[in-house]
Amino acid sequence: MSKRGMLIVLSGPSGVGKGTVRKALFNKSNVDFKYSISMTTRKPRPGEKNGKDYFFVTKDQFKQHIRKGEMLEYAQYVDNYYGTPLPYVNKMRDEGHDVFLEIEVNGAMQIRSKCPDGVFIFLTPPSIPALKKRLIGRGTESMPVIDKRIEKAKREIPMMRNYDYVVLNDKVSKAVEKIMTIIRSERLRVNRVMPDYLAKLGDDK
Amino acid sequence: MSKRGMLIVLSGPSGVGKGTVRKALFNKSNVDFKYSISMTTRKPRPGEKNGKDYFFVTKDQFKQHIRKGEMLEYAQYVDNYYGTPLPYVNKMRDEGHDVFLEIEVNGAMQIRSKCPDGVFIFLTPPSIPALKKRLIGRGTESMPVIDKRIEKAKREIPMMRNYDYVVLNDKVSKAVEKIMTIIRSERLRVNRVMPDYLAKLGDDK
Repeated sequence: MSKRGMLIVLSGPSGVGKGTVRKALFNKSNVDFKYSISMTTRKPRPGEKNGKDYFFVTKDQFKQHIRKGEMLEYAQYVDNYYGTPLPYVNKMRDEGHDVFLEIEVNGAMQIRSKCPDGVFIFLTPPSIPALKKRLIGRGTESMPVIDKRIEKAKREIPMMRNYDYVVLNDKVSKAVEKIMTIIRSERLRVNRVMPDYLAKLGDDK
Repeated sequence: MSKRGMLIVLSGPSGVGKGTVRKALFNKSNVDFKYSISMTTRKPRPGEKNGKDYFFVTKDQFKQHIRKGEMLEYAQYVDNYYGTPLPYVNKMRDEGHDVFLEIEVNGAMQIRSKCPDGVFIFLTPPSIPALKKRLIGRGTESMPVIDKRIEKAKREIPMMRNYDYVVLNDKVSKAVEKIMTIIRSERLRVNRVMPDYLAKLGDDK
C-alpha cells in the first residue's frame, strides 16, 4: 500500500516570480514530486508536446471536462481555456507521488475548496516597491502594463490569509529552501502518517 | 514590536526518549528557543538552582497557582506537585522567544486545551518491540517495571491523533533534524507572519 501523495500549491500575486521559483525548485536534485500538467485549448507552439508541456484539447473536450467536474480549476484567457485536470492529479497522488502546482491566486482558491487537504503556499514580494522594481527589471512589459499588474498584486496580497504558509521571495534560493522545509514538515503531519503508525502498533500486539 | 513566540510541545509515550531528544536539540548551536522551567514542590537536590532547574515552591504556593489558573498543566506524583507555570511561558512568548516544552502525554493534552496555537509534536518509537529493547538496554528498570511502561506506552501511542506532527525516534539525530524542520516550517505559517506582511503593504500604499 503506497501512501497518498500530497498536493502542494504554490501561488502568489501577479509578477512575484512564481515561475522562477518553481523552476529553481524542480532543478534541485532531491526533489521527487510531480509537476501538474495543465490542459489548454490553445494550439501547441513549435516544440511543445502533448502530455508534457500541456494536455492539448479542443474547446468541446475542455467544456466536457468542466461539465463532468474533472477540472480542479480553470480560467478563460482571451479566447482559450486553461486549467488543471483533476483525474491526472488524483492518479499521481493515488500512486503515492506528491503533486506540485504553480498557479495564480484565483485558481488556487478554486483548488482550496476542492482539495482542503492540499498544502497552500503563498509567495509574497518583500514590498510593493520591490515588486515594481522586479517587473521593470524584467523589461518585458510597458509601464502602463506594469502599473496594472501592481494594482492587481495589491488586491491579491491580502488573499494570503486563505493560504497555509507565506514564503518571502527576496532571494530565489532562500524561497526554494523554505518551500522544501514546508514540504518536509508537512510529510510529518499526524493525519498523513498516523494510519501507518497505528497499523504497525496493531501488528505488534 | 516583536512577534509573539511559538509554544512548541514535545511529547510521546513513556520511555520513547523525549529527554534524550530534547537534550540533543538544545545542544545544537543554532537553536534559539527557551526551555520552559517547571515548578515543583519537591525539595531541591544538591546543585539544583531555583529558576534554573526548577521553580521550587511550597505546596500552598503551588495550590494557589492552580487556583489562579496560572498552571499551564500540572500533575501530582507521590506526594509532590509538578507543573508548568503559565506566566513564565507567556512572558517568554510575549518577548518574542519560542518556548519549548518536553512533557508526558497527559500534560501535553492539558496544554492543548489552553494553548490551541501551540505546535504539538508526538515522538514515537519505531515499534513496541523496539521500545522494549530500548528500555531493557537502558538497564535502569526491572522487567516488571519495563512491562508496565510498555503497557502504558501502548495506551499512549494512539493519542498521537491529538497532535500536529509525528516524529519517529529511530535515531536521535534524525528526530532532532525533523523537529527543527517542523519549527522552521511553522515559522512560515500564515497566521504567524500575515500581520507583519499586511502592515508592510499598508506602509507601501
